[in-house]
Amino acid sequence: MTMDKTISLEKLAALVDGEVVGDPSVEIRGFGPLDAAGPDDISFVVRAQYADQMAVSGAAAFLVKTDMEVAGHHLIKVDDPYLASAIVQNYFVEKPFVARGIHDTAVIGDGCRIDEAVSIGPHAAIGDRVKIGTRTEIGAGVVIGDDVVIGDDCRIKANVTIEYGSELGSGVIIHAGTVIGSDGYGYATDRSGNHVKRPQLGIVRIGDEVEIGSNCSVDRATFGVTWIKSGSKIDNLVQIGHNSIIGENSLLVSQVGISGSTTLGRNVVFGGKAGAAGHQEIGAGTMVAGGSAVHGDHPAGSRLAGIPAFNAKLWFRAAALFSKLPEIYKDVKNIKKELVRLSQSSEPES
Amino acid sequence: MTMDKTISLEKLAALVDGEVVGDPSVEIRGFGPLDAAGPDDISFVVRAQYADQMAVSGAAAFLVKTDMEVAGHHLIKVDDPYLASAIVQNYFVEKPFVARGIHDTAVIGDGCRIDEAVSIGPHAAIGDRVKIGTRTEIGAGVVIGDDVVIGDDCRIKANVTIEYGSELGSGVIIHAGTVIGSDGYGYATDRSGNHVKRPQLGIVRIGDEVEIGSNCSVDRATFGVTWIKSGSKIDNLVQIGHNSIIGENSLLVSQVGISGSTTLGRNVVFGGKAGAAGHQEIGAGTMVAGGSAVHGDHPAGSRLAGIPAFNAKLWFRAAALFSKLPEIYKDVKNIKKELVRLSQSSEPES
Amino acid sequence: MTMDKTISLEKLAALVDGEVVGDPSVEIRGFGPLDAAGPDDISFVVRAQYADQMAVSGAAAFLVKTDMEVAGHHLIKVDDPYLASAIVQNYFVEKPFVARGIHDTAVIGDGCRIDEAVSIGPHAAIGDRVKIGTRTEIGAGVVIGDDVVIGDDCRIKANVTIEYGSELGSGVIIHAGTVIGSDGYGYATDRSGNHVKRPQLGIVRIGDEVEIGSNCSVDRATFGVTWIKSGSKIDNLVQIGHNSIIGENSLLVSQVGISGSTTLGRNVVFGGKAGAAGHQEIGAGTMVAGGSAVHGDHPAGSRLAGIPAFNAKLWFRAAALFSKLPEIYKDVKNIKKELVRLSQSSEPES
Repeated sequence: MTMDKTISLEKLAALVDGEVVGDPSVEIRGFGPLDAAGPDDISFVVRAQYADQMAVSGAAAFLVKTDMEVAGHHLIKVDDPYLASAIVQNYFVEKPFVARGIHDTAVIGDGCRIDEAVSIGPHAAIGDRVKIGTRTEIGAGVVIGDDVVIGDDCRIKANVTIEYGSELGSGVIIHAGTVIGSDGYGYATDRSGNHVKRPQLGIVRIGDEVEIGSNCSVDRATFGVTWIKSGSKIDNLVQIGHNSIIGENSLLVSQVGISGSTTLGRNVVFGGKAGAAGHQEIGAGTMVAGGSAVHGDHPAGSRLAGIPAFNAKLWFRAAALFSKLPEIYKDVKNIKKELVRLSQSSEPES
Repeated sequence: MTMDKTISLEKLAALVDGEVVGDPSVEIRGFGPLDAAGPDDISFVVRAQYADQMAVSGAAAFLVKTDMEVAGHHLIKVDDPYLASAIVQNYFVEKPFVARGIHDTAVIGDGCRIDEAVSIGPHAAIGDRVKIGTRTEIGAGVVIGDDVVIGDDCRIKANVTIEYGSELGSGVIIHAGTVIGSDGYGYATDRSGNHVKRPQLGIVRIGDEVEIGSNCSVDRATFGVTWIKSGSKIDNLVQIGHNSIIGENSLLVSQVGISGSTTLGRNVVFGGKAGAAGHQEIGAGTMVAGGSAVHGDHPAGSRLAGIPAFNAKLWFRAAALFSKLPEIYKDVKNIKKELVRLSQSSEPES
Repeated sequence: MTMDKTISLEKLAALVDGEVVGDPSVEIRGFGPLDAAGPDDISFVVRAQYADQMAVSGAAAFLVKTDMEVAGHHLIKVDDPYLASAIVQNYFVEKPFVARGIHDTAVIGDGCRIDEAVSIGPHAAIGDRVKIGTRTEIGAGVVIGDDVVIGDDCRIKANVTIEYGSELGSGVIIHAGTVIGSDGYGYATDRSGNHVKRPQLGIVRIGDEVEIGSNCSVDRATFGVTWIKSGSKIDNLVQIGHNSIIGENSLLVSQVGISGSTTLGRNVVFGGKAGAAGHQEIGAGTMVAGGSAVHGDHPAGSRLAGIPAFNAKLWFRAAALFSKLPEIYKDVKNIKKELVRLSQSSEPES
């Protein structure tokens, strides 16, 4: 896990806003989990219960929580060891971008403005008037339509398709097989039941630092934009319908589906396989349990679960009782019989 | 939104079977939604409640419902403004097909019969004995197996894979990343729990005017055909199992899954994330609520919801009470106690 | 359905551990289902109720269950006709591998070790130091990252992406559009709600005889491996999260999602659209009903259904009563009223 970088514990602590306990001059050359870290690595402990493993770990130092008391190790104490460990790991993993240029087999359209410091892989096919920023990497087999704009420091992985007119910010990562800007699903149905396709003339806009997993589908708007705002992170096999807006820093876990014209506020979280119906407003910070289906508008900070989704706390209580439904049903039947009996016995005798 | 076409209100009315109110000679050059239409555009109003927006819209004329009373505008009155607007929009958007021929980097197999008026994009790979009709467009990176037949006026988007032997009608649209004709999921399991693959020797057949979204999977039949009949429209990330038959003009919304050997009648609708188990018959015009799981056969015109799905009306009533399950459970417990008490107090004293 | 092979009924019986009833010297040249088998074909009957169809089938012989009594046909009696028919069908379908070599348009990196007897399709892009075993077929448009290892007799279909460092055993089939080794979904969130990406440095390992459907996503591990063990068969559009382990011979039906760090024992079955939350242990032989969501650990041999999943038998009983919830609710309300009435009438009069 060791890379070619060396940094003192003191400087690492500055990077993560932490405090050194032990020798600040210890040199760290890499990062690893407790069971794999080597003698030049720093590791991390997210919970006190894992402290025992520090004794058997080969790491040179540890990121631990501020309030954790542990002797005999070089430590950096931080508020959030999990966050700090991500920052430290990124420090060691980051490599300077190496521009490999445009592969011989890539096809580039007319009127493109592509920075010189890029890598465009084999068999990429890029349309006309496409703009690509500096230090951006386009994988093998990627297809980019006309008039697409891609910012700096993006990584577009193999076999991704970005349809015409899409706009990507900087620092965007799109994993293999994902499709950006396919037509939205819109039809008008005539009296015979035939579906007339509505032209889908809008675009997809993707903000800075958005990451989208593999084999996702993000549809272009009917008019206007489908918009994934900055900092959002989307897992694999996720569907984003036409004209949806995903707020900043939202998290959509694998196999989520957001129907058309639905707007999510910032920092919304949808658990795996959850979905939202169309034309809804889901307020900032809302969290939706995996597998749920959101209908209707919900205010900021909602906690939702179920199909259709309602208050998550209530849903968990209801769901925990679902297995008792046969028992409840039987009880109610018996109670009704008993009541008839009681009712008869309590009637004044005639 | 304005294109290079000009048409009088009178001629537009004829196109949509409507009636002009106002000046039939007004020239229209494009189509736009209420808030974006320009002074040469026609727009549309689907519901009376949006009539106020007509005053502030910049549109030259409006498609409105027959019974809508509104003064001061040029109108085309129609039965279904949503449908009419799709027809009008298509009129303006439609462009004559421009054949760009076969790209230098495309690879074409032996014995193919490809119409001269086609566009085949960069890095497409087409097998042997493939037939492609006139005005069909094959996107960059598309892979087509041997003996595939594709009709006229089809648009096969980038990075689609169409496996050997598949048959596509005319006017078919397949969005990026979709796979047609992958092997069906079929195994026989021996006593040790090892799964012996059943050869999947059938094909996929796709009717005229079918549209399939991005990143879908349509499996070939074990024997015979998996068949998506004419006019059906399929959203993104949908799974169609081997030997399934999707009836004419059916709608399968995003992330739907239809298991093997299930037959849907015509104009069936599956909402997003709904599924059907295998070997079922689902009658024409059946509508399945999003997220539902259909088991068993269902007659034409069924309305289904739930897991497993039953009568939708009943399901909606049951689902609305699910949050009351904790309350019901508590009530039943209390009732049982109360009954014991009552029962004792009503017994004749010994 | 007839291929170029001829085999006596006697030899076929040896292949499937069966017993000939009738003439063991009958020559068989192919295999077909009851309604399509020709006069040189063998067919099969899985259930006694289909025996009538044998009379009208054109097949020369039939695979039937040991205890099935039927006269007038050449038979091979076996314990499991479904399994035997798969073995027989594979015998007729199997063709010797024909190595077509590396297509002119494929791009191969430095330091690769690729067996001479392979087929690598048009526009494939293979990274550096990749190893590919004998008789393996790489489809058109496939992208393979650096340091990937692929065993013998694999079939990697068109437009598949296999990211760097992935290790595939022998006899692996991966259908079109699937992505192996995309980054796991892992972030640490800072106080402002920004998500810091955790580097995903592990790999994906795939055992022998694994089959993976089209448009699946299998994420690389954060550290270590995401592992799909030998003999597992995965349907289309399935998601496997980082660090998950799928036990030998497991079956994951279409649109299943297995979250990160979850371990499945051997011969586990997940029905279509079922899911598992992260960091769980699901014991060998567990079966999960389609559409269910598994939370928590479950011992070997569990039968699970529901959201969240519990004992399947109990769930089926509860689910069957869900439609009665409105009735139960109404009954409980009425009972409460009746109890008040009874309670009053049974009180001693004051």
